[in-house]
Amino acid sequence: MTTSTLINRRIVLASRPVGAPSPDDFRFEDGPVSEPSDGELLLQILYLSLDPYMRGRMSDARSYAKPVAIGDVMEGGTVARVIRSRHPGYREGDIVLSHSGWQSFALSDGTGLRKLDAQAAPVSTALGVLGMPGFTAYAGLLTIGQPKPGETVVVAAASGAVGSVVGQIARIKGARAVGIAGGADKCAFVRDELGFDAVADHRAADFAAQLAAACPEGIDIYFENVGGHVWDAVFPLLNDFARIPVCGLIAQYNAGPDAYPGPDRLPSMMRGVLSRSLLIRGFIQREFVDQRPAFYREAAEWIASGRLRYKEDFVDGLDRAPEAFIGLLEGRNFGKLVVRVAPE
Amino acid sequence: MTTSTLINRRIVLASRPVGAPSPDDFRFEDGPVSEPSDGELLLQILYLSLDPYMRGRMSDARSYAKPVAIGDVMEGGTVARVIRSRHPGYREGDIVLSHSGWQSFALSDGTGLRKLDAQAAPVSTALGVLGMPGFTAYAGLLTIGQPKPGETVVVAAASGAVGSVVGQIARIKGARAVGIAGGADKCAFVRDELGFDAVADHRAADFAAQLAAACPEGIDIYFENVGGHVWDAVFPLLNDFARIPVCGLIAQYNAGPDAYPGPDRLPSMMRGVLSRSLLIRGFIQREFVDQRPAFYREAAEWIASGRLRYKEDFVDGLDRAPEAFIGLLEGRNFGKLVVRVAPE
Repeated sequence: MTTSTLINRRIVLASRPVGAPSPDDFRFEDGPVSEPSDGELLLQILYLSLDPYMRGRMSDARSYAKPVAIGDVMEGGTVARVIRSRHPGYREGDIVLSHSGWQSFALSDGTGLRKLDAQAAPVSTALGVLGMPGFTAYAGLLTIGQPKPGETVVVAAASGAVGSVVGQIARIKGARAVGIAGGADKCAFVRDELGFDAVADHRAADFAAQLAAACPEGIDIYFENVGGHVWDAVFPLLNDFARIPVCGLIAQYNAGPDAYPGPDRLPSMMRGVLSRSLLIRGFIQREFVDQRPAFYREAAEWIASGRLRYKEDFVDGLDRAPEAFIGLLEGRNFGKLVVRVAPE
Repeated sequence: MTTSTLINRRIVLASRPVGAPSPDDFRFEDGPVSEPSDGELLLQILYLSLDPYMRGRMSDARSYAKPVAIGDVMEGGTVARVIRSRHPGYREGDIVLSHSGWQSFALSDGTGLRKLDAQAAPVSTALGVLGMPGFTAYAGLLTIGQPKPGETVVVAAASGAVGSVVGQIARIKGARAVGIAGGADKCAFVRDELGFDAVADHRAADFAAQLAAACPEGIDIYFENVGGHVWDAVFPLLNDFARIPVCGLIAQYNAGPDAYPGPDRLPSMMRGVLSRSLLIRGFIQREFVDQRPAFYREAAEWIASGRLRYKEDFVDGLDRAPEAFIGLLEGRNFGKLVVRVAPE
């Protein structure tokens, strides 16, 4: 395989969506693959992670990260194979975690790469349970949530990449884990495969009653990764001194500016914050970067001992990334969503 | 003065207000004053504190404290003189801080009393700058807000019992203090007498622009003690990692259940929490009770050195307490509101 025969397919942001993204907001571009210069390496992308935060990068609303520019490659975490190296730290065949985005090849100068050991764990897990989503769960739950034995921890999207880890770590720490998921299959998985103590189906008409029944002693930690109507069922159940780490609001990412006519729930929310001494804290996992070594070590142990389970939802082919991402925002994935870009 | 000649005037809760309290929600009752039994003492109330939290006690909505029952004496902090003592720890003439409520006399078994030294500071300050409001400012700002030198701290009701202390302690800690107050007189007092760095008038048509101009580097701490429309001006200015201790929401205490038709501001607020890693934390000062000795010591030093100033707004006569309290909820007081119940 010589570089000159390779074609790099890139998926670029064609337009900023208003409301739900559509396939037209993405554009496919094919181009040449460059030879690495001295100090560079050429990566072939094997796996692309699809995550809810990417919806934020498609928008130019104020956020913690710059938006993707129109015409630029969509941002994203990737697992890649080194296929050419002129960098002393990497050899051809090395597998690395990179942030190469929605494309099939990428040049790198080595910045931000992390070598992966394919013997230790499937390398795709570096995008999920052993990667950014798993670490988001770990850092947010332990640092902000601070679960104590016997407390009740509630998390939504409980079959997903973050929620599944939140609940299982809560249990490891001696807390009760209550999951919220959409539909019978996901609920059964959360309860029976992941071992949550209880589960509530947010698509059910009696969702709020299910959640209340699942939390007879109220909620001490609500790990907020969805927003939307789940909040209305959670809020009345929050105990005094409850903690609410906020890492995502997927249910409202697609909402337009007029999506919330009323009533205005902010005053009653602030009233609850005051009368119940609630803590609400937004966070991005990179704030807690110094905890990553502990996370990698502990999570690997928990996986090895069977205490931390995970589910990956693979989609085959880069071309299907837009459709899969649109589905992710609608909750159509089941487990950590990963695009297989090339065979491992 | 024998006990048998004394009349205890009590102001009891006659009805739970819907919206703003009216004089009819209070009832005056005169009754005998009992002799203290063994181990008890009889207090004559000198000063009654009026504070916004009392509006919560008039309601039976869920809160951190039980409501006052219909027919019970309105709750409140008081400074009192011991006029009979059958308690070994107190002598006649002692001045104490008590929580005797809206009445002229009270029996006590000594629980929760604190002796005051009239030589050290005017005893009325035990209800304000050296009491619960001052400690609320101290604990919330230092423990939750954690101001750092050069940061911008914004507080509303800045001429009031809590806000005035928040801003001055912020300055003592090297932060910039920006006050929000209602009207030219209060704004001038906050800037010129209390020494805040800047001030914004929430009654002015250009309030949001005033606040933005006063915070050219954004807001790092917003000490929330009012709620209402002030939030809308503050929210866009909050910096990444801003902290928001929430100790009161006076602007919404009188609101009925249908006061907030929309639009719904909760989604954009949660979006801000996420995208700017905000911390919002409700609190009640008694959570930080272990910090009280440090507060008493430091606040007394700051007052002695002129770094911590205060303003009391005295109302003469217990009978005027309902009217003064109703005015407090409308911002008509100027400084810490205290009722002189009996001459010192």
